[in-house]
Amino acid sequence: MLKLGVVGYGYWGPNIVRNFSSQPGCRVVAICDKNPRVFAQALSRHPGVRATSNPDEVMSAPDIDAVAVVTPVSTHYDLTKKALERGKHVFVEKPFTGTSAQAEELIELADRKNLQIMVDHTFLFNGAVRKIKELVDGGVLGPLYYYDSTRVNLGLFQHDVNVIWDLAPHDLAIIDYLIGLDPELVVATGGAHLNGMADMAYITLCFPNNILAHLNVNWLSPVKMRTTLVGGERKMLVWNDLEPSEKVKVYDKGVQITEAHDESRQRLKDLIEAKVFEVGSGPAIHDLLVSYRSGDMWAPRVDQTEALQLEARYFLDCVASGEKPFNDGRAGLRVVKMLEAADESLKRRREIVYAPSR
Amino acid sequence: MLKLGVVGYGYWGPNIVRNFSSQPGCRVVAICDKNPRVFAQALSRHPGVRATSNPDEVMSAPDIDAVAVVTPVSTHYDLTKKALERGKHVFVEKPFTGTSAQAEELIELADRKNLQIMVDHTFLFNGAVRKIKELVDGGVLGPLYYYDSTRVNLGLFQHDVNVIWDLAPHDLAIIDYLIGLDPELVVATGGAHLNGMADMAYITLCFPNNILAHLNVNWLSPVKMRTTLVGGERKMLVWNDLEPSEKVKVYDKGVQITEAHDESRQRLKDLIEAKVFEVGSGPAIHDLLVSYRSGDMWAPRVDQTEALQLEARYFLDCVASGEKPFNDGRAGLRVVKMLEAADESLKRRREIVYAPSR
Amino acid sequence: MLKLGVVGYGYWGPNIVRNFSSQPGCRVVAICDKNPRVFAQALSRHPGVRATSNPDEVMSAPDIDAVAVVTPVSTHYDLTKKALERGKHVFVEKPFTGTSAQAEELIELADRKNLQIMVDHTFLFNGAVRKIKELVDGGVLGPLYYYDSTRVNLGLFQHDVNVIWDLAPHDLAIIDYLIGLDPELVVATGGAHLNGMADMAYITLCFPNNILAHLNVNWLSPVKMRTTLVGGERKMLVWNDLEPSEKVKVYDKGVQITEAHDESRQRLKDLIEAKVFEVGSGPAIHDLLVSYRSGDMWAPRVDQTEALQLEARYFLDCVASGEKPFNDGRAGLRVVKMLEAADESLKRRREIVYAPSR
Amino acid sequence: MLKLGVVGYGYWGPNIVRNFSSQPGCRVVAICDKNPRVFAQALSRHPGVRATSNPDEVMSAPDIDAVAVVTPVSTHYDLTKKALERGKHVFVEKPFTGTSAQAEELIELADRKNLQIMVDHTFLFNGAVRKIKELVDGGVLGPLYYYDSTRVNLGLFQHDVNVIWDLAPHDLAIIDYLIGLDPELVVATGGAHLNGMADMAYITLCFPNNILAHLNVNWLSPVKMRTTLVGGERKMLVWNDLEPSEKVKVYDKGVQITEAHDESRQRLKDLIEAKVFEVGSGPAIHDLLVSYRSGDMWAPRVDQTEALQLEARYFLDCVASGEKPFNDGRAGLRVVKMLEAADESLKRRREIVYAPSR
Repeated sequence: MLKLGVVGYGYWGPNIVRNFSSQPGCRVVAICDKNPRVFAQALSRHPGVRATSNPDEVMSAPDIDAVAVVTPVSTHYDLTKKALERGKHVFVEKPFTGTSAQAEELIELADRKNLQIMVDHTFLFNGAVRKIKELVDGGVLGPLYYYDSTRVNLGLFQHDVNVIWDLAPHDLAIIDYLIGLDPELVVATGGAHLNGMADMAYITLCFPNNILAHLNVNWLSPVKMRTTLVGGERKMLVWNDLEPSEKVKVYDKGVQITEAHDESRQRLKDLIEAKVFEVGSGPAIHDLLVSYRSGDMWAPRVDQTEALQLEARYFLDCVASGEKPFNDGRAGLRVVKMLEAADESLKRRREIVYAPSR
Repeated sequence: MLKLGVVGYGYWGPNIVRNFSSQPGCRVVAICDKNPRVFAQALSRHPGVRATSNPDEVMSAPDIDAVAVVTPVSTHYDLTKKALERGKHVFVEKPFTGTSAQAEELIELADRKNLQIMVDHTFLFNGAVRKIKELVDGGVLGPLYYYDSTRVNLGLFQHDVNVIWDLAPHDLAIIDYLIGLDPELVVATGGAHLNGMADMAYITLCFPNNILAHLNVNWLSPVKMRTTLVGGERKMLVWNDLEPSEKVKVYDKGVQITEAHDESRQRLKDLIEAKVFEVGSGPAIHDLLVSYRSGDMWAPRVDQTEALQLEARYFLDCVASGEKPFNDGRAGLRVVKMLEAADESLKRRREIVYAPSR
Repeated sequence: MLKLGVVGYGYWGPNIVRNFSSQPGCRVVAICDKNPRVFAQALSRHPGVRATSNPDEVMSAPDIDAVAVVTPVSTHYDLTKKALERGKHVFVEKPFTGTSAQAEELIELADRKNLQIMVDHTFLFNGAVRKIKELVDGGVLGPLYYYDSTRVNLGLFQHDVNVIWDLAPHDLAIIDYLIGLDPELVVATGGAHLNGMADMAYITLCFPNNILAHLNVNWLSPVKMRTTLVGGERKMLVWNDLEPSEKVKVYDKGVQITEAHDESRQRLKDLIEAKVFEVGSGPAIHDLLVSYRSGDMWAPRVDQTEALQLEARYFLDCVASGEKPFNDGRAGLRVVKMLEAADESLKRRREIVYAPSR
Repeated sequence: MLKLGVVGYGYWGPNIVRNFSSQPGCRVVAICDKNPRVFAQALSRHPGVRATSNPDEVMSAPDIDAVAVVTPVSTHYDLTKKALERGKHVFVEKPFTGTSAQAEELIELADRKNLQIMVDHTFLFNGAVRKIKELVDGGVLGPLYYYDSTRVNLGLFQHDVNVIWDLAPHDLAIIDYLIGLDPELVVATGGAHLNGMADMAYITLCFPNNILAHLNVNWLSPVKMRTTLVGGERKMLVWNDLEPSEKVKVYDKGVQITEAHDESRQRLKDLIEAKVFEVGSGPAIHDLLVSYRSGDMWAPRVDQTEALQLEARYFLDCVASGEKPFNDGRAGLRVVKMLEAADESLKRRREIVYAPSR
């Protein structure tokens, strides 16, 4: 029986408590929040739970095995450090920390004390993402060309982070999970229209093997969009997380350079050099080189189990077995490094070479 | 009666001939294309027209007043120059030229000979774009925040230009038309997965007054998208060019920084500095500063007249009156400069400061 | 303080308890369900509540002022009757009863004992429906032409009622609310493909003033649809309840018979009689008579307050004031009569003349 | 070389001329229309064609092998009869004739003279319909449950037919093609809001084997819809003809009555009779009987060839081979009979037993 303390009971905290409570082999024994108003509700829903406004009471409680840190990012380092120092495993909200130095220190600390850190990149347990991972790893898409995400809506403005730290961690974690490589280059552009903090940003990440990723994150969009295109050599897919069903659509569509005979290639080269085809005769030449494929579309059934339920189960299993989770502190660190690089590029208005960490 | 010669009768040429032919006061007298196969069709549709495979025959014909250049971009400079030298007005496909130096030379030549150049940025005559222009100029949106376009599909690969020169001219011309300012900065990122030419690109343009523009252009998308968000301080809109009706949706949605009393601001600052609100109490603070507005949505009726028909009419009117069109050589040059800057940024992997030209 | 007993704690019961519990001036004091499994959950969520599997304990409890009957329709009559006989107001699920005779008896009983009956036609408190009611009553749509609803999905099969009694009450209540007239004719067709009970049905209702209503209800549809068209002389609207935003779209579209001059009419008549226009010349004649209007579309902001919350408030207010609710037993009876007529038509395979009741 | 005369050059005529002209082995030699304005255009597009305003000139021309009758329905009988009497094959617009008696007379005449009649049910050559036919015939859907079509838009009002004769022939022809049976019953309801002619109608057709068809046709809808559901025992599909791609979506979804053990069935029966499960315990019982299946969705690639091009080819082939087309006069007659039955039901306000004809 793992006994969990939950620090932070704002927007996400109740979901954490509900999902861990419902796991066999786990009991939420304490909830902590600065705001006394949230206690009544938490206690009425979870009668036996201790409530406190002092995080230290959770950290020092001898009957607590693990702590879930569900607070704003600026507090993650302090709270996680305290928990680890007192021998508790940590389940911490994304982004892991506010700086990569903090993340590295926490990873080292956890390793030394033989404790687990799991960073709550919930989307990695989402049915659509797991299906996409399966398609990528199974070679269905072929070698990846790109990952292109649009994640925009009106607000919610955060008081302490810009739109990159608020919205980009989801996609960065998914990209890290799907591609499994460190980016070579991060370029971010953006704008700040209201209070000096970036409220919209465009982030490009260049990965080895000519894989490109792009994120469009925006707090000032009149419509909510959660659309991701993933292109591969053999197939391409669209993941629309707002579709009630058919969230993932796989297209048997592609482009390939035709294996033109050498004479064709030579003829093309001659034509280009001679500029003889300049007047309106493009299509014929173009047909020599590129061919398109357009077949069926297929929307695989996507598991609808609540992602956080699977993740809570996985946390309990990792604590029990001692096995490192794939969304451990190092995974969290990689995301923080990409966020830092994007921030730095935004500030310096130029691309940032990303220092690999794995 | 303006007599027009059309050079290039490939994909777009037939539309040019059809739309100019149907204008009162205009007659298409000659069609030129290298490809003899296209003649039969052109002649059967337009019985009285002369057909030739030699552009010079069009350029030197004394009965021709104006020439439409409907060929690949690499030939625009030569053909336009010849036409102007022989005293003919020119209607030329976008992008205007392959380099800004060429564009400048042609503008100078036309001015000297008192001839018109109109660059065929057809989208400026599209009903949705004209409606958006009306909303922006009428102050309905308020000061602009951003223009964010997604223009992606599978192919068509061009043999002589990359995806930026193929797809971006549409949005760059619209942006130039709506914003009326030169960008201060152009940043482009992208990838080339097939034949060494960029097949997908992301272009950010920073304009004065904190206006941001972004273009997502991609030849490797499994689905076709033509979606543009335009955000302003007072209202925001979505233009989906693939919607059969309701192409433009205007949202009475917005965000504003609340005029908090000084004490609130001070209290907020204190809280932030004291870090007393770190545990789960974000929303209350955040409410002090930002408020959202969410009202009706409104889809104004959009004129469905074929854009090229209006543009052909406008060309004839400008030639008759001698008035400079708003989509003249200078407008074409501004688009070419933005294309060059994007290309350069893509190559150098860094942002390019854009040299203003107007 | 109104004290409520809730009988039935299956699919909908928890919503009833939650919404009434959260009203000031109301306390849920007892919950009854045959199934002992549901008790634990109900008690943990609502610690002070009495739980029982015997409905009579609720009916006879002296501290209970009103009873919510949230059970299958076959039990509504018995339970409601018991509650009324013991002097309790009743909030009863739709459809009100299994027969109109039962409904009439209950109405008479409640009137005699001066008690309230409210039938839970929740959709009448839905933001979209209230907005449509406002548009109809305000004359925005003009005189109504039709109400056309598609309400289809896969399952849920009911063990005791056919698809008409399961899905049609929603629209019948809305139609009764919007039109305020009794139908003159009800025609239903349908099919039973699995267990002998109708699993899909089409119901037409003809109202005075040439108003037509149609319902398409289907348990065997591969996709879920909740789309209603409402046509009026001046404007028409589409209500798509599955849209996350823009649920109601009002179209400035219409058709009208042109006020043709008498000579035109006469000429038309002559033409028709002479059959001189038979070969391909239809459009010209047709233009004489009908003209279309196509203007803006407008999606008014729709209140997102949970419907059941408003309805619970309204029940408490009606009990307090003694005012008859608009969704009283008589409204419930009108819906039951339409259901009976549809059932009868389905069985007899012919239209049924509806006996008005108000 | 088949020489074709085309009578009627209004809305659809130009498509007929264009598609037959482009077939090898066919030449359009004459075009006839009462309206002189349409001649100029027809002649400029098809220089060698004879034009006339007198249909008899086409009918009596010795060099004409076949006639396409592309006029309003009220003229089909007269024109087709004349053409057949003069030994010409006939390609005639749908609906075939205004009455079934006329259709029967024409079929008999054509048979006697050994001539072909093809009724232009263009949709039978549409890629989506051919794909659906393939899925039905291949057993992919399993035994059919229903065909449910919504075909609504604003206008076009016809001067000589009601909405049933205007919009329903499409679906009736498709239903006849897919199901291959005569309906046992036709029930239609509808309304006439403008000029006394039905402008909206709902038609149910009951076929043997418990197959149900329903058509929703409406000239007064603010939005255009072309959505058809086809349900089968094994799979179900949605055909949305307005989707630019993915017109047909096949769902691996279904419902089946579980083979419950006899004791379960008996227990259920006992429960129902004893009414012991009345309070909120429905789901458990219901689980005994019905189970749902929800798997992948699949959108097969649909051939985009213009339907009329395939149909023109088929007409030429049938004339050449003497083989009866599947869309012959008898197929046209079956559609006319269903239209008559719907009209009659609408008028008499009751269901009509359909007299089989094949």
